[in-house]
Amino acid sequence: MDLICYLNGQFIPLDSAGLPVGDLGIQRGYGIFDFVRVTNGRALFLDDHLERFYHSAEKMRLPVGRTKDELKEAIDRLIKQNQLPDAGLRILLTGGISPDGYQIVQPNLTIIQQPLAPPPAQLPSPYKLVTCEYQREMPEIKTTHYLMAVWLYPWMKEQGADDVLYRQNGFVSECPRSNFFIVTKDDRIVTPAANILRGITRKQILKVAAAHHLPIEEASISLGDLRLAREAFISSSTKRIIPVQQVDDISFHSNELSRRLFELLVEEEAASY
Amino acid sequence: MDLICYLNGQFIPLDSAGLPVGDLGIQRGYGIFDFVRVTNGRALFLDDHLERFYHSAEKMRLPVGRTKDELKEAIDRLIKQNQLPDAGLRILLTGGISPDGYQIVQPNLTIIQQPLAPPPAQLPSPYKLVTCEYQREMPEIKTTHYLMAVWLYPWMKEQGADDVLYRQNGFVSECPRSNFFIVTKDDRIVTPAANILRGITRKQILKVAAAHHLPIEEASISLGDLRLAREAFISSSTKRIIPVQQVDDISFHSNELSRRLFELLVEEEAASY
Repeated sequence: MDLICYLNGQFIPLDSAGLPVGDLGIQRGYGIFDFVRVTNGRALFLDDHLERFYHSAEKMRLPVGRTKDELKEAIDRLIKQNQLPDAGLRILLTGGISPDGYQIVQPNLTIIQQPLAPPPAQLPSPYKLVTCEYQREMPEIKTTHYLMAVWLYPWMKEQGADDVLYRQNGFVSECPRSNFFIVTKDDRIVTPAANILRGITRKQILKVAAAHHLPIEEASISLGDLRLAREAFISSSTKRIIPVQQVDDISFHSNELSRRLFELLVEEEAASY
Repeated sequence: MDLICYLNGQFIPLDSAGLPVGDLGIQRGYGIFDFVRVTNGRALFLDDHLERFYHSAEKMRLPVGRTKDELKEAIDRLIKQNQLPDAGLRILLTGGISPDGYQIVQPNLTIIQQPLAPPPAQLPSPYKLVTCEYQREMPEIKTTHYLMAVWLYPWMKEQGADDVLYRQNGFVSECPRSNFFIVTKDDRIVTPAANILRGITRKQILKVAAAHHLPIEEASISLGDLRLAREAFISSSTKRIIPVQQVDDISFHSNELSRRLFELLVEEEAASY
């Protein structure tokens, strides 16, 4: 069956859905989005994602033009009609056609749903990361600006790595699509506080760790801190937690807390249904 | 009459031209372009623009999939059929549909032609610029990444300015869509050498200045140099040269060399037909 998508209030076949070539999202890379995992036919932590989506839109001065309830209804209909119990939803707001190539008049709102493998039931195999000196612009806003991430992809593969970890001036921040955490020798879980996108899974981790009295804090992480860490992992909506076995020449041999947090996230997710 | 555009080898009505919502140019802001001014039905300095376009494509690992001659033929047909003697041509190459949201398989190539006021016959009224601490990513490549430029636009207007001049660590680089020049007290014309896009009009200015024995050089320009300068101007394909009367609190009262270079550019342009 053909998938449908949502475009400015209409439900149309995904295959035929296009944005006008003059859209600022195409011509000027001006757009924001959010990505929601659908598991067992439910959009997970949708309120959190929509809150972040509206925040991104406001910061970029892009009027959404629809209420959160209207978006939820549209998402419900996509999930029901597309019958993809395991999927990803991309809610995208682009600048739209502009009279002068700069002014925003009427953004285009698109929601697409596409198949996505369900997250692993167990903690997945560990990743190897390679660091790159880079700081995303406007990191706290989920813009469509992934130019560097896409550009670095072949280089990352050449290094035999699974993902890139951004660093700047001796401090690490995040991966292109994941947040980064370390576990210190004295069992504190630390994740960068600044220059990052505040991930929804990151938020869940902060919550479940606190609820289970696991020491966790948001603080800067230097390359020196990384070298002294006992464990490292990344988090994302699609995979929950992936342990990290290596960052550049630094190896990690434990994944005890990664596993514990993974299990707590599975419980948290089940409770959110 | 409806305008037509070029899309992957086809000529279709511009109003109906769209890119699939999954295109990496939309989802990940991954695309490059070039902009060519059409005057009296001729695409100006087209070879220079195409050379830069292919250079941008290669650096971003985006196969164009067409020869320069094929693009020239397509542009000829657009100009003939659209009958817009004064226009702008945007040649755009976006990442296309990706199986995993990262890998590039088959980029989409679009050429659109839109009406554009012809450049002024005389040196236009001077601009007021406002500086902003910013460095474009991959500045030598003409990507579609204008997120900051579009975002700064309302702020720039609030400052009563006509354009933004980027600076970083005490040195100025360029405006979002124009190159920047100063004239020193001893009549040397200076334009930044690094961290900029090499504009086609900038290239013409370097050429005509040298041909007429006007001292010109590519060198870094500090905010201190700017304060000591006698004259400042910007250059672009659409406007040729616009004199600058103010950058932040620094005023310029001369436009002698701006005017001279403007006249030389008009001659150069006529000679290029």
